[in-house]
Amino acid sequence: MKIICKQQELLAALNISLKAVPGKTSMTVLECVLIEAYDGKIKLSTSNMELSIETYVSGRIDSEGKIALNAKMFSEIVRKLPDDMIVIESDSNFTTLIFCGTAKFKIAGQSGEDFPSMPKTEKNDSVVLSQFTLKEVIRQTIFSVSDNENNKVMTGEHFEINEDRLTVTSLDGHRISIRNVVLKEKYSNKDVIIPGKTLNEITKILDGDLEKEVTVFFDKNNVIFEFDETVVLSRLIEGRYLNVKQMISSDYDTKFKVNKKQFFDCFDRATLLVRESDRKPVIIGIYDGKITLNMNTSLGTLDEEIEVEKDGKDLIIAFNPKFIMDVLRVIDDEEITIYMTNAKSPCFIRDEETSYNYLVLPVNFNNF
Amino acid sequence: MKIICKQQELLAALNISLKAVPGKTSMTVLECVLIEAYDGKIKLSTSNMELSIETYVSGRIDSEGKIALNAKMFSEIVRKLPDDMIVIESDSNFTTLIFCGTAKFKIAGQSGEDFPSMPKTEKNDSVVLSQFTLKEVIRQTIFSVSDNENNKVMTGEHFEINEDRLTVTSLDGHRISIRNVVLKEKYSNKDVIIPGKTLNEITKILDGDLEKEVTVFFDKNNVIFEFDETVVLSRLIEGRYLNVKQMISSDYDTKFKVNKKQFFDCFDRATLLVRESDRKPVIIGIYDGKITLNMNTSLGTLDEEIEVEKDGKDLIIAFNPKFIMDVLRVIDDEEITIYMTNAKSPCFIRDEETSYNYLVLPVNFNNF
Repeated sequence: MKIICKQQELLAALNISLKAVPGKTSMTVLECVLIEAYDGKIKLSTSNMELSIETYVSGRIDSEGKIALNAKMFSEIVRKLPDDMIVIESDSNFTTLIFCGTAKFKIAGQSGEDFPSMPKTEKNDSVVLSQFTLKEVIRQTIFSVSDNENNKVMTGEHFEINEDRLTVTSLDGHRISIRNVVLKEKYSNKDVIIPGKTLNEITKILDGDLEKEVTVFFDKNNVIFEFDETVVLSRLIEGRYLNVKQMISSDYDTKFKVNKKQFFDCFDRATLLVRESDRKPVIIGIYDGKITLNMNTSLGTLDEEIEVEKDGKDLIIAFNPKFIMDVLRVIDDEEITIYMTNAKSPCFIRDEETSYNYLVLPVNFNNF
Repeated sequence: MKIICKQQELLAALNISLKAVPGKTSMTVLECVLIEAYDGKIKLSTSNMELSIETYVSGRIDSEGKIALNAKMFSEIVRKLPDDMIVIESDSNFTTLIFCGTAKFKIAGQSGEDFPSMPKTEKNDSVVLSQFTLKEVIRQTIFSVSDNENNKVMTGEHFEINEDRLTVTSLDGHRISIRNVVLKEKYSNKDVIIPGKTLNEITKILDGDLEKEVTVFFDKNNVIFEFDETVVLSRLIEGRYLNVKQMISSDYDTKFKVNKKQFFDCFDRATLLVRESDRKPVIIGIYDGKITLNMNTSLGTLDEEIEVEKDGKDLIIAFNPKFIMDVLRVIDDEEITIYMTNAKSPCFIRDEETSYNYLVLPVNFNNF
C-alpha cells in the first residue's frame, strides 16, 4: 500500500478514529487503526467491539492495499509531523515507512486480516437532525446516566421517537433528565437504549454545527450515526427502559422562580464546606418572596438568602448540592422554575413547554 | 478584627500568599494565612519555614486585630464569592464571619499567636532589576537544577553579581545552564545559592512586566525579593557552589548553525519512539552542509536529515533527546550554534555574546 495525504487532514481523521480505540484490551489488533486504500478511497477503521468508527480521508493512492498500525503511536507521529504531505508506504512484511518533510519513520504494522469488520446493518429506518441538536441533547442529559453496570439499561439513554418528537431520557436512581426536541419531519415510532459511553464519544466527534446534519439509522441491535465523512456504529442495550412517565407528576404545592446563576452560585459555595466523604445536604427554606439556603458541616456554616417569586405553601427541603448543580449547568434559561410537593417528594425543574423536565430526589435532612 | 476588601483584590493577594503554603505539614498553623489589620494596613502572611511571603491588600479596617485562617479553604471561599465588597469579622473565640452579596460564611480561625514571624534581616545590600528580567533568567535556567537532595548546593541556582553583571548558573550532573544579564547599575560583588523551589514560586508571582522592578536584598542567610505590594523571603543554601568555569571550554573541533525549531522538532519526533523505561539516545551525524539524526528502538526507527552551516571536522555523537530539548525550549534565537570537540566531550550551545551558554554531556552510543 502506498498513499499520500495532507498531514492536517490525516490528523483530523485519526482524532475521530481514536474515540473507538479501547484503553486496555487483550486483542492487540483493537489497539490499531486499520487503513484501507481501495477504489480511490482511503478508509480508517477502529473498534472496541461495542463501538466502531469508519472515517474517510482524502488523498492519493499510488498502490492499493491495507495495513493496521498502532493507533496511538501512529496518531502521535502524524501529530508531530510538519503541515505537509505525508507518504505512507507498507511492504509485504507490514513494515511501514512514513515520510514527511525531513522525517522518515519506520514502524512495524500488522496485516489487519483479523481486524473486526463493522457489522452489516439494514439502513432503511433513519432520522435526520442537526449535529448541534444531537450534541446538545446528549450534553443536557448524559450526566444522569448511571455508571452501575448491574442495571444495564440505566447505563444508557432512552431515545424515543414519536412522529416529529424526539424524547431523550436518562436516570440514575437520584434524578431523571428528560429533553424533548421537535424534528423537522415525522418518522415511524422508535424506542431504543443507546449506551452512555457511545454518546460520550459521539459528542466529542460531532462538531456541533447547526447547519450540518447527522443521519441516525436504527436496526434491531445497532444504531448508526452518519455525518461528514464518518460512520459510527454502536450496539444498542437490550431490554426495556424504565417507565419514567409514572414517576413524573405535574402537580405541586410550592413553586418558585429564581435567577439560575444566583441559585447555582449558592450551591457552588456550599460545596466548599463539604469534605469528599461527607454527604451533607443544602437545606432550602422556601418563603413568600425569598428562599434561604443553609449548609452546616464540621468545616463551617454558610447561609444564603435570595429573592424569588414564590407560589403556594412554605416548605423546608434538602438536596445533595451536586445533583442540583448538574441540572442547573445544562439549562440555558436565565430564570428557572422549580416545582415541589413536600420535603420527601422529588422536585421538578421544567420550562412551560417542557422542552426539559428534570426530577431530583430530596434527602432527609433529619438524618444530618 | 473587622475588615472590608474588594473580592478581586483579596483574591489576587491570596493567590500570591498560597505560594508559601506547604502541601503537607504537621504544624497546622502553617496551613493558615495570617491576616493582620493594624495602622491602616491589611497584611497577609504565609510561610513554609523555608519561604515566607508577606503581601498587602487595600481595604478598610473597622476594628484592628489578627486572625489565622486555613489558607486553601479561605482562598476557595473568596474565589467563589461575587465580585463585590467582602466583610471579614472575627470574634474573641476566633470564629470568623465572611459576608459578601447574599452569602454569609462562618468558619473557625486560630489566634495566629504561634504563626512564625518573618526573620528580621538587614536590608542594606540590594540589587534592582526588572520583573521581566528576573522571571526570564529563572525560566531559562531552572530546568537543570538538580532534584537530588544529597547534594544540597545543586538543588539551588548560583546567583553571582560582579559589578553590573548578573550570572545565574544551574547544573544537575548532565548539563549546565548559564545566563548572563547586564544590570543598569554597578553593585558590590555577591555570590549566593538560592533554592530552586523558591525560584519556582517566585516566577509564578512575578508578573513579568518590563516596566516593573524588583529589589533583591541579600544578607548572610536570606534573600528577600520586594516588588509591588509583596515581600518574599527565602533561606539561602549554605556552602560553596561548584566551580563551573573549569568545566567550560571555548575550544571546539566541530560547530554547526541550525534552525532551532527544525532541530527541536527532530528530537521531539524521536522521543515518540522512546518508552519511558528506555534511555535511547538520538545519534547525530555531522557532515559538510548537513546533519543526520537517527533514533532506533523496539518501536521503530526515525531518520532525519537537515541542512546546516558546518565548520570543522565530521563527527558522530549521541544525546539524550530530553536534555537537548530542555535547552532549545528556553532559547529565543531562530538560529543556534552548537560547538563540539569529540563524541565523549560535552557540546556547548551559546551565542556570540555568551548571554547564554548551555553545556550538555553526550551519551556513549556504543552502549545501545
